[in-house]
Amino acid sequence: MKISILRLGHRKKRDVRVTTHCCLVARAFFANDVTFTGEFDESLEKTIKSVSKNWGGKFKIKYEQNWKKFLLSRKKIGDLLVHLTMYGKNFLDSLPEIQKLSKKRNILVIIGAEKVPGEVYRISDFNLSVTNQPHSEVAALAIFLNELQSRSPLKNAAQTHFKSAKIKIIPGQKGSKTS
Amino acid sequence: MKISILRLGHRKKRDVRVTTHCCLVARAFFANDVTFTGEFDESLEKTIKSVSKNWGGKFKIKYEQNWKKFLLSRKKIGDLLVHLTMYGKNFLDSLPEIQKLSKKRNILVIIGAEKVPGEVYRISDFNLSVTNQPHSEVAALAIFLNELQSRSPLKNAAQTHFKSAKIKIIPGQKGSKTS
Repeated sequence: MKISILRLGHRKKRDVRVTTHCCLVARAFFANDVTFTGEFDESLEKTIKSVSKNWGGKFKIKYEQNWKKFLLSRKKIGDLLVHLTMYGKNFLDSLPEIQKLSKKRNILVIIGAEKVPGEVYRISDFNLSVTNQPHSEVAALAIFLNELQSRSPLKNAAQTHFKSAKIKIIPGQKGSKTS
Repeated sequence: MKISILRLGHRKKRDVRVTTHCCLVARAFFANDVTFTGEFDESLEKTIKSVSKNWGGKFKIKYEQNWKKFLLSRKKIGDLLVHLTMYGKNFLDSLPEIQKLSKKRNILVIIGAEKVPGEVYRISDFNLSVTNQPHSEVAALAIFLNELQSRSPLKNAAQTHFKSAKIKIIPGQKGSKTS
């Protein structure tokens, strides 16, 4: 299973830090890549590429101007489209089905920034919520990716996943070290 | 067990959205309150109070000028100080101990914005990481609060927790409804 993220409607000024957090969460929780739509943002791309270079792994970031075309093309090639929204059904109820389908299909997880167009709901295979309370797409993405992969991101994060890292943390109870 | 969050070093301009997300995650994942330090931010307080009013529950937000005084006072009254940092030990290893201690003590979860002073590491009872990769305090907080409470926030979020809500979501597979 390959996991991709689609970050919709990025606004360069307003969303830069939240979108950065989304991308870093995607990487840390074992997604393969993120595509962002909305405003092009060179510095966002630079930041994420630099993290990937220093901390290892093969995480990619891409920009796409036309979200609808992108979404439909991914649907056409058989990706499973999972839209995270607080208006959706509890994701835990659909998780077993998604995990089963993911054995044969790649997953595209969709998260919005500004108000998400109604078409996204209609095109998506699943509209799912991580609680029905207003909180954060950053948190929703982390929780979903972790549970989707049976919590292996939490258990195996630094140890097994990110090859060719220039920076690694040596966890310590107090203080900090990197090498 | 009462769960409080301390958000360190809030910078009004730079952090407003990330701190807002932290507060909303704290509320959605059943913490009781958040205290922020750094720059005072009236609009942040307003946003969080308004969400609590509309979506229910008793979540509180407070400002504190002197983080060290606050931290030491909470330690003195017996709170368990858990600092989330990517330099810490894997939180899963300490979770059983924290859950055991939390039967008799309240928890203060500390998350940083700007670089966290060394003293925070020394004063905290635990310095714990949610993966040792750079990602997001928003995500780390959600994952930690969820696991700390044996995932009850995910399972029971909208249904049981937030009394006196003016807005509730009726989850639907496609589209959205609130009442």
